[in-house]
Amino acid sequence: MITLHHLRIGRSIFTVWLLEEVGVEYQLRVYQRNPETMRAPPELKQVHPLGKSPVIEDEGLLLSESVAITSYVLQKYDADNEFSPSPDSLQEWAHYMQWLVYPEASVFAPLLLKMLTLRSGEEHSVISPFSDGEIELHFNHIAAQLGQRSFILGERLTGADFGITYVISMAERLGLLGNYPTLAAYLQNMRARDAFQRAVANAVE
Amino acid sequence: MITLHHLRIGRSIFTVWLLEEVGVEYQLRVYQRNPETMRAPPELKQVHPLGKSPVIEDEGLLLSESVAITSYVLQKYDADNEFSPSPDSLQEWAHYMQWLVYPEASVFAPLLLKMLTLRSGEEHSVISPFSDGEIELHFNHIAAQLGQRSFILGERLTGADFGITYVISMAERLGLLGNYPTLAAYLQNMRARDAFQRAVANAVE
Repeated sequence: MITLHHLRIGRSIFTVWLLEEVGVEYQLRVYQRNPETMRAPPELKQVHPLGKSPVIEDEGLLLSESVAITSYVLQKYDADNEFSPSPDSLQEWAHYMQWLVYPEASVFAPLLLKMLTLRSGEEHSVISPFSDGEIELHFNHIAAQLGQRSFILGERLTGADFGITYVISMAERLGLLGNYPTLAAYLQNMRARDAFQRAVANAVE
Repeated sequence: MITLHHLRIGRSIFTVWLLEEVGVEYQLRVYQRNPETMRAPPELKQVHPLGKSPVIEDEGLLLSESVAITSYVLQKYDADNEFSPSPDSLQEWAHYMQWLVYPEASVFAPLLLKMLTLRSGEEHSVISPFSDGEIELHFNHIAAQLGQRSFILGERLTGADFGITYVISMAERLGLLGNYPTLAAYLQNMRARDAFQRAVANAVE
């Protein structure tokens, strides 16, 4: 059975949601952030040297990185390719890979910058306009891709939706969704899913 | 034939290197940054709505994101799994995926923060110590993984080495490698490879 090391509150709830969607048996180890610094507790460093979350353990494998965890879970438990195209459909699969890695590789950094300036209450003459511009660029790109689609790649949920939902959820917490009704509606739809509700209930978010 | 849209100077040189290592035929379209803002030129937006690099075109496919491009190139042109484990070796493959996505998903953001504070000459009371701490954490993690290995996953070059080399190269440009001889030596070894030399010659870096 997969053990998920889950840090509240952060990106690992989206891994709980993944496990619920795919229907994999799992157990949670729950960690709380330091309420003053918002950093992860030192116990997580005993699990993985980076001390971050999510991390999963499965049959002796210790695995970090949300995208790698999604890929592993689907490779092992989604033999019918319900949640991702097969690599045999090469171009469709490449497009899926692009949207799978894009949230963490491109959208997260400007959101992190924005979070740090907002939390500190201290603007920066270069970082603040840079992060605002990048966030606008990426949110318009995601909104254009979503268009009238229900999910980021069309009419079915794929592995790419977990990361997209994560960055949109982070943006909502930072109060950045006002101009992006398409993203807000998508987030609402993802949260309304039974599997998401089960994830939140299990993780006591 | 693959067309690679290559922006000087940035991460796409590592995609040129990938194509040279795998032995794929390609052509380059080269773009120059605005020398004042260091941003990509508007022509790149005509290629891809994000206006970033690398982007490849291949048989009608338009693909962004370094990790997706690496995955696509290896899926299509590395049938013998010379540069990555097969998903059939599930745990080894998962570990490869972790190190493939880790540079862009986890290491790039603190390096970007550092680059922006260094370039502006303006520190920030929260961002500066945060980025310094994260960079130290990640560089020690990469150095520990490298240990006595020649490559990030052992004794052969894999798809994961391109992103690792990218972030270490970025760190070198920012003057951050002084305390990390393992990373500096790794970077030197990667740069000494014939394929890297051919990439630099072709891209006129």
